[in-house]
Amino acid sequence: MKPAADAQTTPGAEPTGDLTSSRIALRRVAIDTYRENVAYLHRDCAVYRAEGFQALSKVEIRANGQHILATLNVVDDTAIVGCGELGLSEDAFMQLAVEEGHVVSVAQAEPPASIGALYRKIAGERLGLQDFREIVSDIAELRYSKIELTAFVVATNRDELDREEVYFLTEAMVASGRKLDWHEPLVVDKHCIGGIPGNRTSMLVVPIVAAHGLLCPKTSSRAITSPAGTADSMEVLANVKLPFDKLADIVRDHRACLAWGGTANLSPADDILISVERPLAIDSPGQMVASILSKKIAAGSTHLVLDIPIGPSAKVRSMPEAQRLRRLFEYVASRLHLSLDVVITDGRQPIGRGIGPMLEARDVMRVLQNDPQAPNDLRQKALRLAGRLIECHPDVRGGDGFSIARDILDSGRALAKMNAIVAAQGAKEFDFNKPSLGALTFEVRAPADGMVINIDNLQVARIARLAGAPKVACAGIDLFQKLGDTVAAGEVLYRVHASFQSDLGFARQAIARCNGFTLGRASEMSHVFVEF
Amino acid sequence: MKPAADAQTTPGAEPTGDLTSSRIALRRVAIDTYRENVAYLHRDCAVYRAEGFQALSKVEIRANGQHILATLNVVDDTAIVGCGELGLSEDAFMQLAVEEGHVVSVAQAEPPASIGALYRKIAGERLGLQDFREIVSDIAELRYSKIELTAFVVATNRDELDREEVYFLTEAMVASGRKLDWHEPLVVDKHCIGGIPGNRTSMLVVPIVAAHGLLCPKTSSRAITSPAGTADSMEVLANVKLPFDKLADIVRDHRACLAWGGTANLSPADDILISVERPLAIDSPGQMVASILSKKIAAGSTHLVLDIPIGPSAKVRSMPEAQRLRRLFEYVASRLHLSLDVVITDGRQPIGRGIGPMLEARDVMRVLQNDPQAPNDLRQKALRLAGRLIECHPDVRGGDGFSIARDILDSGRALAKMNAIVAAQGAKEFDFNKPSLGALTFEVRAPADGMVINIDNLQVARIARLAGAPKVACAGIDLFQKLGDTVAAGEVLYRVHASFQSDLGFARQAIARCNGFTLGRASEMSHVFVEF
Repeated sequence: MKPAADAQTTPGAEPTGDLTSSRIALRRVAIDTYRENVAYLHRDCAVYRAEGFQALSKVEIRANGQHILATLNVVDDTAIVGCGELGLSEDAFMQLAVEEGHVVSVAQAEPPASIGALYRKIAGERLGLQDFREIVSDIAELRYSKIELTAFVVATNRDELDREEVYFLTEAMVASGRKLDWHEPLVVDKHCIGGIPGNRTSMLVVPIVAAHGLLCPKTSSRAITSPAGTADSMEVLANVKLPFDKLADIVRDHRACLAWGGTANLSPADDILISVERPLAIDSPGQMVASILSKKIAAGSTHLVLDIPIGPSAKVRSMPEAQRLRRLFEYVASRLHLSLDVVITDGRQPIGRGIGPMLEARDVMRVLQNDPQAPNDLRQKALRLAGRLIECHPDVRGGDGFSIARDILDSGRALAKMNAIVAAQGAKEFDFNKPSLGALTFEVRAPADGMVINIDNLQVARIARLAGAPKVACAGIDLFQKLGDTVAAGEVLYRVHASFQSDLGFARQAIARCNGFTLGRASEMSHVFVEF
Repeated sequence: MKPAADAQTTPGAEPTGDLTSSRIALRRVAIDTYRENVAYLHRDCAVYRAEGFQALSKVEIRANGQHILATLNVVDDTAIVGCGELGLSEDAFMQLAVEEGHVVSVAQAEPPASIGALYRKIAGERLGLQDFREIVSDIAELRYSKIELTAFVVATNRDELDREEVYFLTEAMVASGRKLDWHEPLVVDKHCIGGIPGNRTSMLVVPIVAAHGLLCPKTSSRAITSPAGTADSMEVLANVKLPFDKLADIVRDHRACLAWGGTANLSPADDILISVERPLAIDSPGQMVASILSKKIAAGSTHLVLDIPIGPSAKVRSMPEAQRLRRLFEYVASRLHLSLDVVITDGRQPIGRGIGPMLEARDVMRVLQNDPQAPNDLRQKALRLAGRLIECHPDVRGGDGFSIARDILDSGRALAKMNAIVAAQGAKEFDFNKPSLGALTFEVRAPADGMVINIDNLQVARIARLAGAPKVACAGIDLFQKLGDTVAAGEVLYRVHASFQSDLGFARQAIARCNGFTLGRASEMSHVFVEF
């Protein structure tokens, strides 16, 4: 990322002269502060004393015509930084892009140009497009501290953004990064708002629609709070971390890819905001819409099918809430000229059997292989979503998409397309018949006879994460029973896979508190109405 | 601070066994992360890999029956932490209170017990007393990350707290620290909500009311955003950093003290919240009331006179706003059985002549010495406030306080009392007739003939801070003209004092943009109505 050379200049300010900044030698401090620039100065450093810096104050560091902002930490150990040195954390050091020992100038930083707009939002005011552009640009260029980022996220939480502001935010997030142009009239994508473990439909939808000839350059994220993201599961089969040029070649050759989106610099502010939203468990409608749609627009999509699952432990818990969210998505999409088809699906339980990167990859491959063990719910959902996308093409009659998708899957053409994509991205060793799942296992059994009347998505996801997923790809949960299944006491409900004793222990502890399954009578099972 | 041994235990959780935590040698990392506990693990550390930690995830560290929470930073340099070591930032290391090399256990931390209440507040719910108690206790014991602290501050900003919640927050803040009991029925204090440079009345009011026999154990903060706090100015005359026992002795002997409050552990959560509020420029009514009143209640005050200045560049800018704030203060004070007398004063300009620790100490001493150069506005305001406090005593008739205060000041008894307090706390060298002000100076002159019709408190404070105040005690601004004074072109408006060329440069740059003074005609001068 190249900092904009003029973005720091306050209108009317005089240029920063030697009088107001000090010169000091640069040092790399190998601490990964995770998307926050941190500068380290020794407490006895003449610059620290002369400039009247305070702990956590923001400093501006200039060298070679580049400049960055960083938050100051004070150090008392010359092994970390000496008295005549300025230390920079790894992110910050790379951004400034000069060598160790290079003399840099350091001064009290003016606050980021957008800080006034941030204060106004904190105070409850409505912001305009230009305000959002300035804020998002400062965020994308790492000029906000964690405190300022959090303030922005909380101040734009809940109903603090009206729908026009959500559009402004989305537009600003698109503008902060790269925007792909595939030079075709129809570029399709699908997305789910998340929250349902095992919901790995993208790895089926993409090969199906690409086999039909649609252009579907799918870039996905890794898991943020879930046990696996599409990028994590796909990585079991193939390389997903591809340079953008390579990715574009694959899309040209195969009409699709299934890659990690991190290398493409699409809506970079989004990833930075997520770093704060995740630890706060904030996932408000406005931020969700801006995050999802900005990524899609930046990726060059023209048509999107969006999956909103509802259920008692899904992100969205009622139909009125789902409808409100749908309308917000539709409003912003229409402002951005994105053709959007929202489907509201059954989110009462996980999709498929496996939860965790390798277990989900196994389920996907079973569906593609038309294996008798393939989970039917995953197959059916993928076919319906693929059918909707196929109907985006003007030559397909409404209602015909599903059977076209089914033919492509049943005939093996989807598998062939998937194999081609995997080979193009760089195949990995993976035998879906004998996946090398985590060797440490633990089985959870029914305490009594009964019917499975509830599966808690959140608790099941939590257990899979404690077992090691997604970091440990072969860890997770293998479900043996689903909603509506009748079980006898002692029958296995699910098996936990882990690779480390400590992980298995964490998962076992969580299960002792709550295993995520509720048994009861058929009449007690929750129902949902869906629009799909 | 001693962490509560049971505060981390989640109800129903099993005790943490060896299975779910790893053991590793402790190392002190001499980085001052300013009130946030940070733990450092090497990227190749077996514990980091096995536990599935993520950057910025919270870890719990246990040793010797103590435990702390910390935010994780990942390190790539064995000079900072080796592969078999866990590093702790200075604050965290001191809290855990075991030696380097000691084997500690480290595990994924359960979130602080109050995190559910925090999420509910972020989602806009009203919280109860128990919720606030849990949140504030977690804050005081440093279990919140900067992200969680910021989320709390923004989510309780503006009108997000109703007055009952402000009472709950105040009560919880009192409960989080020590509460002093002076075993007397009448313990008086005064406080100003801040924002007016030079408003150093406490250093006059305290000796006056103590000379009258009232008990006034005054503990003050250092400057947060201003060029000087009472503790900073008092430190020019005497030692203010006293162990609590010493402070109690002084109060017993002299009926008063003028000390820094940081050593007494009064409302400790307040200082932590301020560390986030300051960089965000957040100063919402609810947080202000909780901050001020919790400190006063914890300090054992029974009667408080509270000064709310209003003016175009004061914190409060209109009488209706001042009245709303007054009612909120009165409601919470009455719930806490604190007798409160609110005065609304003229906040259109700085009080006195000097701005900065030493310049303000000079003004205070001139008033106490009845020096002809003493600023009359400072003298009058201090006498009025002291008079109000003196009238707290049941034997004083309403309206008599002012003349009693004036007699005490004019007779030299206030000076004698101040000298006794200064001597008891440990006097410093200071000649108020020849204060050794910052030797680098810069004079700001009137560009034309006219009357001073406005002085911008914020800009004047900013210039004084850039000149070095309060860190450089002898730096600041000496005002030669005040509101309503007529000046000729070229006449000096004020003089800036600094000790470092860079500081003087910063101040001069700011002055070039705006010097804070507006000249005009008498008819253009702003007026305020006050209740005093």
